[in-house]
Amino acid sequence: FFIRNHLPVPCINLKDYSLDLQLPSSNVSLSFEDLQNKFKKSSVTAVTQCAGNRRSEMVLIKPVKGLNWGISAIGNAKWTGVALEELLKHYDVDIETVRGKYIVFEGLDKQEDGSPYGASIPLELARILKNDIIIAYEMNNVQIPRDHGYPVRVIVPGVVGARQVKWLKKIYFSSEESTSHWQRNDYKGFNSSIDWHNVNFDKSVAISQLPVTSAICDPVEGAELEEDAEEVTVKGYAWSGGGRGIIRVDVSADGGQTWHEAQLKPNGQTPYKSYAWTLWEADVPLPRGINKTTLICKAVDISYNVQPDSVEGIWNLRGCLSNAWHR
Amino acid sequence: FFIRNHLPVPCINLKDYSLDLQLPSSNVSLSFEDLQNKFKKSSVTAVTQCAGNRRSEMVLIKPVKGLNWGISAIGNAKWTGVALEELLKHYDVDIETVRGKYIVFEGLDKQEDGSPYGASIPLELARILKNDIIIAYEMNNVQIPRDHGYPVRVIVPGVVGARQVKWLKKIYFSSEESTSHWQRNDYKGFNSSIDWHNVNFDKSVAISQLPVTSAICDPVEGAELEEDAEEVTVKGYAWSGGGRGIIRVDVSADGGQTWHEAQLKPNGQTPYKSYAWTLWEADVPLPRGINKTTLICKAVDISYNVQPDSVEGIWNLRGCLSNAWHR
Repeated sequence: FFIRNHLPVPCINLKDYSLDLQLPSSNVSLSFEDLQNKFKKSSVTAVTQCAGNRRSEMVLIKPVKGLNWGISAIGNAKWTGVALEELLKHYDVDIETVRGKYIVFEGLDKQEDGSPYGASIPLELARILKNDIIIAYEMNNVQIPRDHGYPVRVIVPGVVGARQVKWLKKIYFSSEESTSHWQRNDYKGFNSSIDWHNVNFDKSVAISQLPVTSAICDPVEGAELEEDAEEVTVKGYAWSGGGRGIIRVDVSADGGQTWHEAQLKPNGQTPYKSYAWTLWEADVPLPRGINKTTLICKAVDISYNVQPDSVEGIWNLRGCLSNAWHR
Repeated sequence: FFIRNHLPVPCINLKDYSLDLQLPSSNVSLSFEDLQNKFKKSSVTAVTQCAGNRRSEMVLIKPVKGLNWGISAIGNAKWTGVALEELLKHYDVDIETVRGKYIVFEGLDKQEDGSPYGASIPLELARILKNDIIIAYEMNNVQIPRDHGYPVRVIVPGVVGARQVKWLKKIYFSSEESTSHWQRNDYKGFNSSIDWHNVNFDKSVAISQLPVTSAICDPVEGAELEEDAEEVTVKGYAWSGGGRGIIRVDVSADGGQTWHEAQLKPNGQTPYKSYAWTLWEADVPLPRGINKTTLICKAVDISYNVQPDSVEGIWNLRGCLSNAWHR
């Protein structure tokens, strides 16, 4: 499971920890014990993916700003805690009717000037997700490791990692997006003719739900097959934002001339609430008489969204949203 | 607004019309007057699109089965009637808890053997759409024209036209999809290596929500510009299934080397319930010293889904889901 933070990882003593809810008519401060004991326990199994996953493929075309992630800035885990909707209901706040346009989350990780890491999601999106948004205090049935947000992190399934604030300290409603750098001036998409001289971050919509993606994990790049191999077993992951389940993965060993449909491993989720990834496997015949080939995969989600063919078509200055056919 | 029917258009006398609801504990028959007078009036403005829209671009690569639609098998209209959720609630049926996996719709249009046109949507999807599904008796504030389903049609916004049954006669819940040809053996997607010799319709998921698309409507193909023109004004539509609003449209006049962001006309809808299309316009500089150019457009939706680059990558035997960059 990848690790990414923008500010130094805070050192938190559980006894001192509190989660602050700024509600329309009251402010509430909850201890870790309160979170564990006062509310029903809820879980969600979900992918968390950095917007910069597979950025390394964009770098090959033209330099971009950001960490040079391969295909591994993604992880899948079971998160357990309190459903946000349930938590609010306890304090008589109905997520359907509460005023505001955004829910803002702030962490305990701080910039040099003392201001915290922050992110927000539109209330419209929170109302769609309802009790799938979890204020999590467990990751895979144990306390959340420090690098993943100990003791408390918000999980907003289907949404980019940057909005799933770790070391969660404060939740409030606002008529505006979080004013943080990462909400306003980062994690946005642009077309490939926008560069650092003409970019206007105000004109682009903050990334929330992520598009369909997939990647080949095995064999790894450069792997050698047996000399007389007639086929190759290919394995990987596929996932789409917004809970959209994966319905097909195609694999090609001849540059996209011929496609083979992979076997999808059931992930136990329903087509429109498929927050977990789908692992897949395909036995793909190798073209005859060659000694080198490039494998390609591409996935289709329940809305029949497909991955774009080329990195060129989606290249952007921040190297985000890199979801072209994986080669 | 395009017209498409699979069976002969029925001739319906309003006095004889009834809508039959087969509910878990009762059967209800509603006259047109009942529909108009017994329930709250609700409206939705939504795109209806044939899965075969832009099939003509797939035909250029390899023959496909289906009508040779250009970019016009799509329409946008205001539909008014009774929200399905509301209608069911009136008869004490809660869409959240009712048993079954699908809602099935049947029309008054019949095959030679007397069986009706039918379609279904997963109950999971109906629960997401809730009161946005309309049992419509008005189109753009007047009675629905005969070709569009007079007197009653179901509107399931964000979903392919084939599921939005016209001349609606019957609604029921089932553990199975509609058994109609168009649900089971048509309107499904396949990869481009599947042909009529190896196709297995059972293995593919029925098309419901459609992926992001856009098209250039003006100038039309073959249009001549003024001799000394330095730029061209390009206009078109963009839309995505599932209520996903359009956040960007890019236009290129140099084969995708340079992209210009179009102005989007507000459609009055919210980002995650944007069932109407988004019209757009862009002034695009023309490359110097050429006397012929191909314009390209591509759109991005709120989940940052993009259109695929090529028709080759999405070609399928039925010519469905043709949403590559429009050239």
